[in-house]
Amino acid sequence: MRSPLTFDPVRNDLPCFANAAPRFRDGSDTPRAFLERCLERIAAHEAAIRAFAWFDPALPRAAADAATERYRQGRPLSPVDGCPVAVKDIIETADMPTQMNSRIFKDWRSGRDAACVHALRESGAVILGKTVTTEFAMAAPGPTCNPFDHARTPGGSSSGSAAAVAAGMAPVALGTQTAGSIVRPAAYCGVYGFKPSHAALNIGGIHPLSNSHDTLGTIAGSLADAWLVARQIAAVAGGTPPHAGLRGPVDLPPDRAPKCLIRLETDGWKETDAPTRAALEAAIEKIAGRGVRILDRRGTPEVERLESALQGVAETARIVSSFERRWPYLDYARRHPEKLSPEAAERVEASRRIGADAYCQALEKQESLRRLVADMAGLADGFVTLTASGPAPVGLEHTGSRSFQIFWTLTAAPCVTVPRLAVSGLPVGLQILGYRDRDADLAGLAGWVDRVTGH
Amino acid sequence: MRSPLTFDPVRNDLPCFANAAPRFRDGSDTPRAFLERCLERIAAHEAAIRAFAWFDPALPRAAADAATERYRQGRPLSPVDGCPVAVKDIIETADMPTQMNSRIFKDWRSGRDAACVHALRESGAVILGKTVTTEFAMAAPGPTCNPFDHARTPGGSSSGSAAAVAAGMAPVALGTQTAGSIVRPAAYCGVYGFKPSHAALNIGGIHPLSNSHDTLGTIAGSLADAWLVARQIAAVAGGTPPHAGLRGPVDLPPDRAPKCLIRLETDGWKETDAPTRAALEAAIEKIAGRGVRILDRRGTPEVERLESALQGVAETARIVSSFERRWPYLDYARRHPEKLSPEAAERVEASRRIGADAYCQALEKQESLRRLVADMAGLADGFVTLTASGPAPVGLEHTGSRSFQIFWTLTAAPCVTVPRLAVSGLPVGLQILGYRDRDADLAGLAGWVDRVTGH
Repeated sequence: MRSPLTFDPVRNDLPCFANAAPRFRDGSDTPRAFLERCLERIAAHEAAIRAFAWFDPALPRAAADAATERYRQGRPLSPVDGCPVAVKDIIETADMPTQMNSRIFKDWRSGRDAACVHALRESGAVILGKTVTTEFAMAAPGPTCNPFDHARTPGGSSSGSAAAVAAGMAPVALGTQTAGSIVRPAAYCGVYGFKPSHAALNIGGIHPLSNSHDTLGTIAGSLADAWLVARQIAAVAGGTPPHAGLRGPVDLPPDRAPKCLIRLETDGWKETDAPTRAALEAAIEKIAGRGVRILDRRGTPEVERLESALQGVAETARIVSSFERRWPYLDYARRHPEKLSPEAAERVEASRRIGADAYCQALEKQESLRRLVADMAGLADGFVTLTASGPAPVGLEHTGSRSFQIFWTLTAAPCVTVPRLAVSGLPVGLQILGYRDRDADLAGLAGWVDRVTGH
Repeated sequence: MRSPLTFDPVRNDLPCFANAAPRFRDGSDTPRAFLERCLERIAAHEAAIRAFAWFDPALPRAAADAATERYRQGRPLSPVDGCPVAVKDIIETADMPTQMNSRIFKDWRSGRDAACVHALRESGAVILGKTVTTEFAMAAPGPTCNPFDHARTPGGSSSGSAAAVAAGMAPVALGTQTAGSIVRPAAYCGVYGFKPSHAALNIGGIHPLSNSHDTLGTIAGSLADAWLVARQIAAVAGGTPPHAGLRGPVDLPPDRAPKCLIRLETDGWKETDAPTRAALEAAIEKIAGRGVRILDRRGTPEVERLESALQGVAETARIVSSFERRWPYLDYARRHPEKLSPEAAERVEASRRIGADAYCQALEKQESLRRLVADMAGLADGFVTLTASGPAPVGLEHTGSRSFQIFWTLTAAPCVTVPRLAVSGLPVGLQILGYRDRDADLAGLAGWVDRVTGH
């Protein structure tokens, strides 16, 4: 087996589709050759990392050949034609099983593509394979390990998507976030993660966990690819009704320098150690050094009010997602009790204890938090904090703390993690958070932050 | 084959579960005996009416025996324990196929229960069988005919649910409405139909057509059963997130006499003929005779404003549902073009022509209509109009005009049809419309209207 990879927060040599596509157009590179480079990385690292739940190179090769032929004829189908995309294994694929890391769904095939996979296939993208998820993106972890230290978790639940991208097996992968499942694994694996605004990408055909929070997004080796693939999904499949879908330019919006950012600590702060905090402060100093005003809870009452409102929101999120988990999970528990992990069984059973009144109260809290965040738009261009409380913890049994991710899932607003911090040689994400349905603004802001913190 | 049934708008002899349940408790009747009476009606009429897409009496018999045993022990699971419920065939059932009247889903089994079926099974209800739907509740009709005239449509898309109830095969059936598919077939078949507020009953596990409009509801031989089953579904499975679910008493709320009702004409009025209009006016006279003030477009500017706002809303609904139909239907069209009916194929293809901007504009129109309707609550207790433009048309190729149903689906507010009008011996529904998320108020109002128009 190969040794772990080495993380470098300044340079990465990961494949970037957006960089390669112009060479597909001029004939100096091809989608098939691009894919073969990904397949080489899979051959080299998959035995150790175990990012894939299902993989058959014949399928992506056929798709890449078709894309190659379209470029040869000067007729690519879309800006993502020929782009290999790995797909989290709770997302339906017509030609591959969708197994949810659950014994209930062993070898299950839905016979159709989820909305996002349909959109990508219509656009000529190359569906690479299915990546490991925790059980139903909720409970027992899969076998994937962290590419930078095989004894550590890659994070979850989009474990395989983040690990595959980090190992250069795919330029981009689809992930979903209900608590912290896109940006946490992306941070632990030292890659980019983009959780769009809630419902901005259509979740049709993705196994439900909590409809109010389930969010489809991208994990990628570059911000350009994370944006491009997300934007193309929305262009074909729209958002989750009644959301019309992510708006903005087809390519990554240009860098957008902020005037003012809010530095958030949140409930997760008490979990951080000194080196992690120091890494964040160093990045914030680089940002401030470019003339950006940084507001925090100590100097700004409005920020302190937001920090107070964010206290304990994990419990609010738990109530909402627990209630919404009743279906289909109580049906699975009734029908296949022996096929749920003990952790899943307990979480499903807990959903019975949340009544409609508690659920409504939690929704009201969530709504007032959303209004409070929206009101900050007059004060600052966005927010900055850690993506996780530190580097990936040792052990594959737990996928890490959700504290630094769950609060923004609750706001329904978008966030991006950029792999610009390192602690003891391991990646820690820098999280940039934006305003709901202003995803393109956030992408431009994240691009600027990525650049100024990237050296 | 049996002759058609005869419609009587004053008396019906349909099985009523709410009436029977006390006798289950005192042992003078049993769920198994109740079921057998339904099975006798199926044996007598199914060959002519063809309400069922799938039916095996062994399954409901086993469930009814278990319910019978629970009553014998004095421990029924819920207020619907032992109630036979027929299930529209776009709703997933673990032990029966779900075929959507589509060749794509021939013999398909999902292996799980939809949220509503799960809720009913947990509550001890007896899942009777799967009732005929039009193709994906959208296109080609099934073989079901109208119980009162076999040459006429039963309406659609919940064709089999309405026909089964009308023929006494089941006290209650599940239906769904995206345009007019609960209340129109209920009206054509002379039974009660209840379309709750949008999302008030969880649509998890129901094949999607248009998420913004898809609404689960009940069709029943009595208002009591229509309410009871709907309320019990919400008690166990909640609403579609983030809706907590239908609220109100477990049993049908008591009759509620209105002070004032608004008589609506809408775009459908021009489709009506003189006898149908006369039937409506006679019912409204009975209501007015009880001291209820009736407002209409001629005497009340606010009503004229609402009537104006309702003009052309079918086009708004078409744009919304077309856009939302992209997934999964464009995937099906890509994968199985030969298995879609020409009508379905054309509707699916049309979804490509609706852009995100047109969709957003239609959503805005819909939202302003919803506000306008909500504002009428200060003026009147509810609304009254026809459920359909006349009796069921002759022929099984078309399931009738949606004009009298689609506008209230767009408002997301609840409505009930009561079988109190007859034209040329055929049923025509009287539609009572309420305010969003005030379903219990509407049920009480509909009960009152049902009583005062029922003789």
